[in-house]
Amino acid sequence: MSPAFDSYWPGHQSYYRTMSIQRISILGTGLLGGSIGLALKSISSEYHITGYGHNPSTVQRAVEVGAVDHGTSDLVEAVRDAQLVILCTPVGVFSEILLKIGSALGKGAIVTDVGSTKRSVVKLAEQHLPAGVHFVASHPIAGSEKRGVEFARTDLFDQKLCIITPTSRTDLVALEAVEQLWRRIGMRTTRLSPDDHDRLLADISHLPHLLAAALVAMQSPEALGLSGKGFLDTTRIAGGDGGLWRDILLDNRDHLAESVGRLKSQLDEVLKMLRDDQAEPLRRWLDDAATRREQLMQQKLRERNAE
Amino acid sequence: MSPAFDSYWPGHQSYYRTMSIQRISILGTGLLGGSIGLALKSISSEYHITGYGHNPSTVQRAVEVGAVDHGTSDLVEAVRDAQLVILCTPVGVFSEILLKIGSALGKGAIVTDVGSTKRSVVKLAEQHLPAGVHFVASHPIAGSEKRGVEFARTDLFDQKLCIITPTSRTDLVALEAVEQLWRRIGMRTTRLSPDDHDRLLADISHLPHLLAAALVAMQSPEALGLSGKGFLDTTRIAGGDGGLWRDILLDNRDHLAESVGRLKSQLDEVLKMLRDDQAEPLRRWLDDAATRREQLMQQKLRERNAE
Repeated sequence: MSPAFDSYWPGHQSYYRTMSIQRISILGTGLLGGSIGLALKSISSEYHITGYGHNPSTVQRAVEVGAVDHGTSDLVEAVRDAQLVILCTPVGVFSEILLKIGSALGKGAIVTDVGSTKRSVVKLAEQHLPAGVHFVASHPIAGSEKRGVEFARTDLFDQKLCIITPTSRTDLVALEAVEQLWRRIGMRTTRLSPDDHDRLLADISHLPHLLAAALVAMQSPEALGLSGKGFLDTTRIAGGDGGLWRDILLDNRDHLAESVGRLKSQLDEVLKMLRDDQAEPLRRWLDDAATRREQLMQQKLRERNAE
Repeated sequence: MSPAFDSYWPGHQSYYRTMSIQRISILGTGLLGGSIGLALKSISSEYHITGYGHNPSTVQRAVEVGAVDHGTSDLVEAVRDAQLVILCTPVGVFSEILLKIGSALGKGAIVTDVGSTKRSVVKLAEQHLPAGVHFVASHPIAGSEKRGVEFARTDLFDQKLCIITPTSRTDLVALEAVEQLWRRIGMRTTRLSPDDHDRLLADISHLPHLLAAALVAMQSPEALGLSGKGFLDTTRIAGGDGGLWRDILLDNRDHLAESVGRLKSQLDEVLKMLRDDQAEPLRRWLDDAATRREQLMQQKLRERNAE
């Protein structure tokens, strides 16, 4: 099976050829996989989407909500005719899945993923996928602490950022095809190395999750009874799936340990300001944080309005 | 001036006499002071509310939005005829204000506050207020990272919790009167010692604020560019006023240092789990945090529905 190279995409600096991808397999039909399916189906009826789920009833629900055309609990069947396979399962089962689908994929097929860490999946794909199957790692920054296709939404990815992490081995046509896919469902895309991705995401995503959970874990029942809206907001992300986050935190443990170290240094600095009664430096530190966050909010609004 | 003891409040275990408070002074007409004014005026036209603000234009805006009947930038004038004075300024200026209003208050007048720490204000009130003026410390758990009477809302306190921190010296009639006031604007009330309050609030409110600010402060611009909705939620409270939070954190620095210490212990435990690849304990820890937070959400919903 060789994908057709037949469509032109205008709007690029130089028009380039890209693949016409129609047969897509979504492995893992939860919130993310389901939302990708809904988004694609809302754009074009030409997509034929196969959904795979370990649990038959989960896949059945994905078919029922219209996120996939066809569902199966057989991995090999799920990917056999696919031009593009999107891994939407927890990071922890990527290894097993890549190992199983490698021999079933046709030459020229593209595999991407939605995992929150990127070094390990790039390495696994290099190990497990045969020559002629192209892997392009993706991380769409979208989601929810909710789970399941019941919470899938057509607009989950709209105006959000998708990080693609190519390496020197990445096939450029496959790279463009994957970027086009994310853009078609409304995302902005950017490229980073897998290591830069994991380092930066440790700071901006994995550490916040760890902190939110730690903040809940350390509370006495008495203190929880006095919580206000601020505490619930601050810890919202701690409501996420434990198994999913365990995989992410373990997978990125080296960068995460560094992030925790830098956070602790910040805390030590503030404790010193408090101990030494440094009112002005403390106020500046707090005001700087408030200003940075406000600027971030404004930037997000501009990005949204620029779409 | 002696307040009249003339109203009965049913609905209590034993009916009791309470003061008929009509002349109220709100010192500090920002978000909290303004919202108290709006809430009281929405309940009864019998309240006559005087607003004080350091800045005349701030007080003027409070008059314009109907949060106070009369505004002044003269502290003594603001409290002269008041039966109840509510301190709504930042914690850092309580000392100065209590010192100035003491001699202007009539015998039997009650003073309360909305400060986020309680040990210091109780001590200051004992030092600065004359015999015959009753101080009852309050902490309504309500607010916003927004500032100013422009954001004041009639329902800001609705169904929220107000912590009252009486001591052995607190006048019981004044205590009941202050509790009634908060209940009239829709709050539940509970009593804690000033020290218990400050210890528990360090965990559930002051530490989360510190963490949110530290989490913003430690980010590189590159990492901030990759932030998703989770990061904005987690750090929302870091958008609060730097001066206000400086006062709170400094005032409660001893309990806060202990809270930071316990958080660091949690982080160290998790780092150890990550280092030792303890997948199951890590998952349990994450799931426990998710479950505790979910239970807290459910509890909040029940409290809301019970009203």
